[in-house]
Amino acid sequence: MTLSCGSSATLEAVSAAEPQLNKWYQLFVYQNREVTLDMARRAQAAGYSALVLTVDFPAIGLRYHNIKNNYHPSGEDQANYWPYGTDTAIANNATWADITWLKSQVRIPLVIKGILTAEDARLAVDSGADAILVSNHGGRQLDDAPATLEALPEIVAEVGRECEVYLDGGVRSGTDVFKALALGARAVFVGRPVCWGLVHSGSEGVKSVLEILYTELDNIMTITGCSTVASITPSHVRCVDDYTQALHAFNEK
Amino acid sequence: MTLSCGSSATLEAVSAAEPQLNKWYQLFVYQNREVTLDMARRAQAAGYSALVLTVDFPAIGLRYHNIKNNYHPSGEDQANYWPYGTDTAIANNATWADITWLKSQVRIPLVIKGILTAEDARLAVDSGADAILVSNHGGRQLDDAPATLEALPEIVAEVGRECEVYLDGGVRSGTDVFKALALGARAVFVGRPVCWGLVHSGSEGVKSVLEILYTELDNIMTITGCSTVASITPSHVRCVDDYTQALHAFNEK
Amino acid sequence: MTLSCGSSATLEAVSAAEPQLNKWYQLFVYQNREVTLDMARRAQAAGYSALVLTVDFPAIGLRYHNIKNNYHPSGEDQANYWPYGTDTAIANNATWADITWLKSQVRIPLVIKGILTAEDARLAVDSGADAILVSNHGGRQLDDAPATLEALPEIVAEVGRECEVYLDGGVRSGTDVFKALALGARAVFVGRPVCWGLVHSGSEGVKSVLEILYTELDNIMTITGCSTVASITPSHVRCVDDYTQALHAFNEK
Amino acid sequence: MTLSCGSSATLEAVSAAEPQLNKWYQLFVYQNREVTLDMARRAQAAGYSALVLTVDFPAIGLRYHNIKNNYHPSGEDQANYWPYGTDTAIANNATWADITWLKSQVRIPLVIKGILTAEDARLAVDSGADAILVSNHGGRQLDDAPATLEALPEIVAEVGRECEVYLDGGVRSGTDVFKALALGARAVFVGRPVCWGLVHSGSEGVKSVLEILYTELDNIMTITGCSTVASITPSHVRCVDDYTQALHAFNEK
Repeated sequence: MTLSCGSSATLEAVSAAEPQLNKWYQLFVYQNREVTLDMARRAQAAGYSALVLTVDFPAIGLRYHNIKNNYHPSGEDQANYWPYGTDTAIANNATWADITWLKSQVRIPLVIKGILTAEDARLAVDSGADAILVSNHGGRQLDDAPATLEALPEIVAEVGRECEVYLDGGVRSGTDVFKALALGARAVFVGRPVCWGLVHSGSEGVKSVLEILYTELDNIMTITGCSTVASITPSHVRCVDDYTQALHAFNEK
Repeated sequence: MTLSCGSSATLEAVSAAEPQLNKWYQLFVYQNREVTLDMARRAQAAGYSALVLTVDFPAIGLRYHNIKNNYHPSGEDQANYWPYGTDTAIANNATWADITWLKSQVRIPLVIKGILTAEDARLAVDSGADAILVSNHGGRQLDDAPATLEALPEIVAEVGRECEVYLDGGVRSGTDVFKALALGARAVFVGRPVCWGLVHSGSEGVKSVLEILYTELDNIMTITGCSTVASITPSHVRCVDDYTQALHAFNEK
Repeated sequence: MTLSCGSSATLEAVSAAEPQLNKWYQLFVYQNREVTLDMARRAQAAGYSALVLTVDFPAIGLRYHNIKNNYHPSGEDQANYWPYGTDTAIANNATWADITWLKSQVRIPLVIKGILTAEDARLAVDSGADAILVSNHGGRQLDDAPATLEALPEIVAEVGRECEVYLDGGVRSGTDVFKALALGARAVFVGRPVCWGLVHSGSEGVKSVLEILYTELDNIMTITGCSTVASITPSHVRCVDDYTQALHAFNEK
Repeated sequence: MTLSCGSSATLEAVSAAEPQLNKWYQLFVYQNREVTLDMARRAQAAGYSALVLTVDFPAIGLRYHNIKNNYHPSGEDQANYWPYGTDTAIANNATWADITWLKSQVRIPLVIKGILTAEDARLAVDSGADAILVSNHGGRQLDDAPATLEALPEIVAEVGRECEVYLDGGVRSGTDVFKALALGARAVFVGRPVCWGLVHSGSEGVKSVLEILYTELDNIMTITGCSTVASITPSHVRCVDDYTQALHAFNEK
């Protein structure tokens, strides 16, 4: 589980509640880098096994649907920020050097979240990233951002031999999980489905959502003949254009 | 006609009712391989001229529409299974070696049903298959399975010179039949249209459905100038991309 | 104007009514080739300047919309057929040799109508055709027939240097005319729009429809800078894929 | 701001009202070239810093929506034309030589508006154009004209090293601006959004529309990491086909 820095319980409280769970902590580069550093060290001290640094948020996207719905989330209940008062603005001047710097300050692995191109994946890895999380921020930052599943292959091709690559965004079924794994993701993350389960029936709902995804993935693996996750390969998926090319090859015979 | 192993009349009763009909028998690899063997031998003894072994069913797909419709088919009326009591689970551990084994136990040809890629067609043929039936199980096993007509050409290209290749799935008109034949299928199979005819007006309805398909195929063959099935070739169909390429070639002159 | 062999007035009566008009006559290869020959000679004698031989009608297509609408056109008012009694079945055994034969029997040019591939255009021309009319019979013969505009370029590329190529099917505006001319058609024909005009307001309606098409063609020619029909070239149209390729070329710089 | 020659206030009055504003003046080649020349000289004298010569209007397009809506704009309130009486017909015989001629008569730069192909951009520049405005006249001249964003790359590739290239047509959000800049436009122009703002709330509405576009562009630049307009490059946009190609490359590994 990755805990958002915007959680209403402190990262320490969450860790204390589930000390055995494999937990990662998500944070930003803040305008005040000391806030970044303090949060990272708190997470490390509290037993989180990785930091997930979100890099696609130099400014919040223009979310017209929020304006239309008169939705204005308050930051007041973001407990992790309480120690820092109002000095918690997310940096709009972060550079790749911030990754190198943060990496040098912590012992736990640093995952860079919000990468959508091979070029940026290369820069992140060369700056010290231990892993890449291909993400378009749930499609909420930029209306015309690419689908993460489309961006995944070129990123895996670029850095997949050097580090693990993950994906989030649009994962709604076990079939989606399967496709991402087939195209080189080491794991996928889900956000909204978990919220839907929570709204439906609390923690039981969250558990159900995860079980559904697991059951669906298990089913498609059985039907496609993949007995292990490692045996899911690019040859298990096709893009429509492949069939057009196969048809051309067929006709030319 | 291919008789499903799940038929409500025994394979022997069906054969006795239509002794002259060219009949094939469909079965699975069962967890208890003796069930598989006994069924195969019964079919052979009863005059079936081929076995159709379905290989895309190591587990039943997650059919949410069935859950929504509260549709839970019972296996109680599947007469072919009665001799085996409850020991009729379909194998989830079948391998290509099962094809080689079954082939060695019977004299009638072995058709492998449920192939969707050239790679699997190659493995099936090398394992002893006498023919390949390209099928996605009527689209019911896996929501994102490819259309059989799209998968057909690469399979014909791979094994078409060594054995016959058939197709089912989505065949709803004589035009669909024609396209499959043009892309290398030796024959096609239909499932749901037959059921629709049956529901509409019993055996007369089934007969009408088949006559409609025959009439439509005959008409398109006449209009395309194909006087025999053998004269239906890949040059009788096009994919849209062909025209784009032709236009490029035209513009470059 | 091309007169259909199924007209309710005889070809002689039509010609007598408009002796100065440039008229072509459309006919089929009939089972009784003497009917074909007699019709061809009558047209020639009556002053028609070309024969348009339709070759996509060895059988009538399965027109389910006609069945649904309970539309069963009678042949009783087809005046051109009256001399031949009931011996007017359209041939289902015509071959390319029939073109060579008919060509040898008449002095006026022979246009072959109903060609949709480069291969058939080549055969038609080699059999004696003076011109090719790319047509899918208004889309009424075969539901999955290609659009004539898509089929046109490969046909022009194949025989365009040897004879004139025309097009019908789907021509509904001056833009459609322009596109066909740009892709190599020497002229286009229209059917249904003329009928719509006729139903709307008789001969005035037909005149209006033709004037609208003329006005639209004139307008697009002016806007695209084509001062003559001959100056309309392939470079005046694009397929969407061209822009994708241009974008790739741009990005690679 | 580019002032239309069809404005209801004279170009002199507009300039007097906003003497410091960077203003361009749009005009046509008129049948009477003296009208063209006089207008151009008036604009130059009144402080306009460039002429925008529209070349996609040898005739007005067939605007059926205007006919349906009974919309017949009168030219009576077009104040810039008053000095010329009724002698203001737009030329239908303009050639590239008119550009060379007009260029020779004025000191301010000459922008050619209405270019949609690389060929025409080349001819315009070779005839003396100082800049190219890629435009399809808001889609109003020809129903099947290409999107300007699709036509832009080949034009930039052809003349982008020799002159500035601009774009209008379909610019409705900051994302549209960003894409045009990424594909090589030096600037974009907007028409209808300005009218919408004007109708909504007069000059305040126009101001709001421009502020919205600016805010959106600023936001996407921040999120994509472009700190200056010059840093927006082709690598910041993708066409879907890129991802298909990336997937093929990935699968071939």
